[in-house]
Amino acid sequence: MEYPSKLLTELVEEIAKLPGIGKRTALRLALHLLKQPEEQSKNLSNVIIKFRQEIKHCDICQNISDKPVCDICNDDARNHKLVCVVEDVRDVMAIESTGEFKGVYHVLGGLISPIDGIGPFDLSIDRLIKRVQDKHIDEVVLALSATVDGDTTNFYLYRQITALQEPPVISTIARGIGIGEDLEYADEVTLARSILNRIPFEKAIKQNK
Amino acid sequence: MEYPSKLLTELVEEIAKLPGIGKRTALRLALHLLKQPEEQSKNLSNVIIKFRQEIKHCDICQNISDKPVCDICNDDARNHKLVCVVEDVRDVMAIESTGEFKGVYHVLGGLISPIDGIGPFDLSIDRLIKRVQDKHIDEVVLALSATVDGDTTNFYLYRQITALQEPPVISTIARGIGIGEDLEYADEVTLARSILNRIPFEKAIKQNK
Repeated sequence: MEYPSKLLTELVEEIAKLPGIGKRTALRLALHLLKQPEEQSKNLSNVIIKFRQEIKHCDICQNISDKPVCDICNDDARNHKLVCVVEDVRDVMAIESTGEFKGVYHVLGGLISPIDGIGPFDLSIDRLIKRVQDKHIDEVVLALSATVDGDTTNFYLYRQITALQEPPVISTIARGIGIGEDLEYADEVTLARSILNRIPFEKAIKQNK
Repeated sequence: MEYPSKLLTELVEEIAKLPGIGKRTALRLALHLLKQPEEQSKNLSNVIIKFRQEIKHCDICQNISDKPVCDICNDDARNHKLVCVVEDVRDVMAIESTGEFKGVYHVLGGLISPIDGIGPFDLSIDRLIKRVQDKHIDEVVLALSATVDGDTTNFYLYRQITALQEPPVISTIARGIGIGEDLEYADEVTLARSILNRIPFEKAIKQNK
């Protein structure tokens, strides 16, 4: 498709660099901006560059934050000896929205992925190991995706942490059939895992709210 | 969901104002920008505001253009007495890509839509009527979407144009395209056929049931 304007071509190409957005969608978004007040484009433009230039990461957990230390790491009511390791800020938000986790986090900023050329040193793994050792962490909960990259990263972290002089307990979130999910539609690996890791019925009842 | 940063919240809210993009997708896009070089955010930010502030519309056909008169209206090889009326620039691009239309265009900039509060005077209809009269246009091809708004606009245009002293032939593209289907998503062969097989508006009315 040929665009009638160089400015439009440039904008479509920039928008289409975003993941999951093709040129057709990019064109639709560009034309949408044209129909809206100029104010909206100005705000969007400003906030993109401001976000990219001014956003900070928490010195302790590497989560996105406006302050040097994030609200979670600053919260004295939380257990700072219990660290949940996640891939990115979306996982922190998801776990926080359950209201069930009273520990703190460590955000890796990605997963080890040889295919994408992401190695351990591209992530905040060194900082995690140092933190576990220096702060005498009691338990590390690995909460990474159940994918090839997630498993690779899990094993790498496990080896690094158990190699410490006084290693903490290392746990991983339970895999199983989702609440409200049909048993017959679950994949075999998940179903097998949920049977192997079965828990006392009394315990499950207490967790029902 | 609570975001860990005000800057992130602002960006997600601005991105989620775009059509078809929810807060979850907006968050994914924001975090993507963070992983990319700052250059990419800068380019995107610059090109958005440049596009919005500097984009022009062709003086004759109202199509998006970098120049006062667009390349199509400037092309002497085209038939300037044959005007195809479309909703927006995407439709011009779609028809141009068929290579079957040798006339020129008139871009309305939308459709009459009482529900969305868009009336005839929000579109470039006055300019079309004036153009048809002043330039002694031979034929007007109505190529609007086969939707309620498209039909409303068609009838409005038909009444306005036939009220002229020497009205041109009014035709409409053949409905090889499904009712309710967007023009821009039609395949090129169907779209080309529908332009070649345009029929008198009176005939089209009779086929509406």
